Amino acid sequence: MLGPPPGRMDYETPQFFRVMQYAASADRDVVDMVSGSPDWEPPAALREGLHAYADADSADFQYAPSVGLRGLREEIAERRGVATERVLITNGTAEANHLAMTGALESMDGTEVVTADPVYPYYAGRTNLLGADLTMVPVGADGHLAPDDVREAVSDDTAAVVVNSPNNPTGVTYAGETIREFAAIAEAHDAVLVSDEVYDHFDYSGRFESALTADAPNVVVTNAFSKSMAITGWRVGYAIFPPTDAPAPVADLLDRARTRHMLTNIAVSRPAQAAVRHALRNTGPEYYEDVRATVRERIAVFTEALDAAGAEYTDPEGAFYVMARFPGYESTFEHVQRLIDEGGVACMPGEAFGEARADWFRFALVTPRVAEAAERLEAFFS
Amino acid sequence: MLGPPPGRMDYETPQFFRVMQYAASADRDVVDMVSGSPDWEPPAALREGLHAYADADSADFQYAPSVGLRGLREEIAERRGVATERVLITNGTAEANHLAMTGALESMDGTEVVTADPVYPYYAGRTNLLGADLTMVPVGADGHLAPDDVREAVSDDTAAVVVNSPNNPTGVTYAGETIREFAAIAEAHDAVLVSDEVYDHFDYSGRFESALTADAPNVVVTNAFSKSMAITGWRVGYAIFPPTDAPAPVADLLDRARTRHMLTNIAVSRPAQAAVRHALRNTGPEYYEDVRATVRERIAVFTEALDAAGAEYTDPEGAFYVMARFPGYESTFEHVQRLIDEGGVACMPGEAFGEARADWFRFALVTPRVAEAAERLEAFFS
Repeated sequence: MLGPPPGRMDYETPQFFRVMQYAASADRDVVDMVSGSPDWEPPAALREGLHAYADADSADFQYAPSVGLRGLREEIAERRGVATERVLITNGTAEANHLAMTGALESMDGTEVVTADPVYPYYAGRTNLLGADLTMVPVGADGHLAPDDVREAVSDDTAAVVVNSPNNPTGVTYAGETIREFAAIAEAHDAVLVSDEVYDHFDYSGRFESALTADAPNVVVTNAFSKSMAITGWRVGYAIFPPTDAPAPVADLLDRARTRHMLTNIAVSRPAQAAVRHALRNTGPEYYEDVRATVRERIAVFTEALDAAGAEYTDPEGAFYVMARFPGYESTFEHVQRLIDEGGVACMPGEAFGEARADWFRFALVTPRVAEAAERLEAFFS
Repeated sequence: MLGPPPGRMDYETPQFFRVMQYAASADRDVVDMVSGSPDWEPPAALREGLHAYADADSADFQYAPSVGLRGLREEIAERRGVATERVLITNGTAEANHLAMTGALESMDGTEVVTADPVYPYYAGRTNLLGADLTMVPVGADGHLAPDDVREAVSDDTAAVVVNSPNNPTGVTYAGETIREFAAIAEAHDAVLVSDEVYDHFDYSGRFESALTADAPNVVVTNAFSKSMAITGWRVGYAIFPPTDAPAPVADLLDRARTRHMLTNIAVSRPAQAAVRHALRNTGPEYYEDVRATVRERIAVFTEALDAAGAEYTDPEGAFYVMARFPGYESTFEHVQRLIDEGGVACMPGEAFGEARADWFRFALVTPRVAEAAERLEAFFS
């Protein structure tokens, strides 16, 4: 039932770059549906906040607290309904996940990390880096990770279960009861549930609930403003750790993360923190609604073309990805190249994300040219 | 001859913060000579660069290359006379040192890190975090680390020798031949010399030379714009690794660092990188000369007061610190408190940096009130 681990998935020279380079050097015009970087505007208040910071007193250019700017942590804590002390500002979700996974492997018994298959490749790469064992649990036909399958996969050797909802690459959103079941399964095996919620603003199903709703102490929630404010390059993220009065060893996770964060990075870059704090305080729900409406429209256009092309695909419920497969057109690197050269559309081969969906393709809907790509796909497969 | 390692130096709740908090809550006015954050203006081009970035196309807000913005790496490579490929942009010198030390412990035989005593506490803290053994070599009476003492301390179990010149906390600058001797000693023991040169713009002796001048492949040079551009909070640093055609295992250091950097942080915050790139291109030598002149003046005023107070001190040749001791006034936390309460001057006790200079005090000259502090010190000790 469980797929084999993908070994050293190619995270050192990620396939993303290989595909993007191939597309960039193509002889023809290509619509880039490879990368996950938003193509829309950040909130206006973000630019404002950065201008204001550029004129600040030079004292504000010096070390921020290692755990992050107080005001930013407070804004986050209020929105997430947790004590400010539990919030650690990190260099994007990447560092938040790194600290959570490293801490779990240090604090909990066990050397194994459990993820979904397909998986966001950095989880797998990091597991390798940390010398841990990776167990990947194939998602079901609907793209969802089934609690029963996770229950079967975890063991007392599991230190962390890492999930992502709304999900990259499948585009699904797990139900609240599912995420709470993952937390309970992790708790039963003295493991940490690391819940990466970076796409929380991109749920079209109305189903999204944070793992913070779980009645379990062993949950670390990670997030960032990379997607919600369209600033993947700014590297402002956060982790919410269990309270320090949680039962041991879960109670140690926060202190371990603070120490490792301080000795690795000292703190997160302050211009970005200051601008995000300003934007959080001065951006209304319309901004997020507008962006969601844009992606929703793209999903409608794109899935219509997939239907016309006779593709099978996973219904996009969240994030901004569509996974699809085309009868008679296997997902190989050669086929990705042919789709670029002859179809004018660049996407990721499923093998970049594991074994379970190696015969699928992942399309990222973060280009204003989704309609054009849809037409091209339809023509290519007709 | 060697001092005992300081065990778990108090790096998790650094004494810096304890002293600063005590000073901040004092009933009287206190001159802060504790922290190492510049109190002067950054280059004008830095603010300009950040304003320009705040108005950039939102595509420029997305992921920068993991190794850093190409233009920034090129500017650095040109100034340092190395190939651009060897330059990795990091989250301040902290991450550069973290990657260099982690890589040395992974690639080289050995589990030991050798540093000076007194030492910048993060080197010691990081050594503990990485589960390595710390050997600290006491500096001489002149505050310099003697190559013969380092030679005596290193062994085949040494993976890294970590030095800092100009030096925090002693304020000395090592001679070029000294730094080259450290590189040769490290090479002879299959260890990496990690040379933290973050104070390279703050040499008053004319003696500073980079470890890049060493004829040895096993050198990693680390640096940042934190001090030179007065932006400790922006977190833009870099490491220069050995070329990938260096002999194994030194040749692996760059790739290991790139992988760890990518899986920990993905990349360094882009607003800060873009502004620093602009400032590097548009800041002349006058800026650095002016700042040096300011610190030099402060050194003159402060050491005059130390002479008058009958103190013994290490001649400040670089960076912006003075280490001093006062006959009959031992360096204890209580005495630091008394100097705050009765003298109106806050400084660091020597024990925060190790054993060898536990009876010294460290004063940071990064306050416009150095003259006032000098007067207060003179009065306190008279």
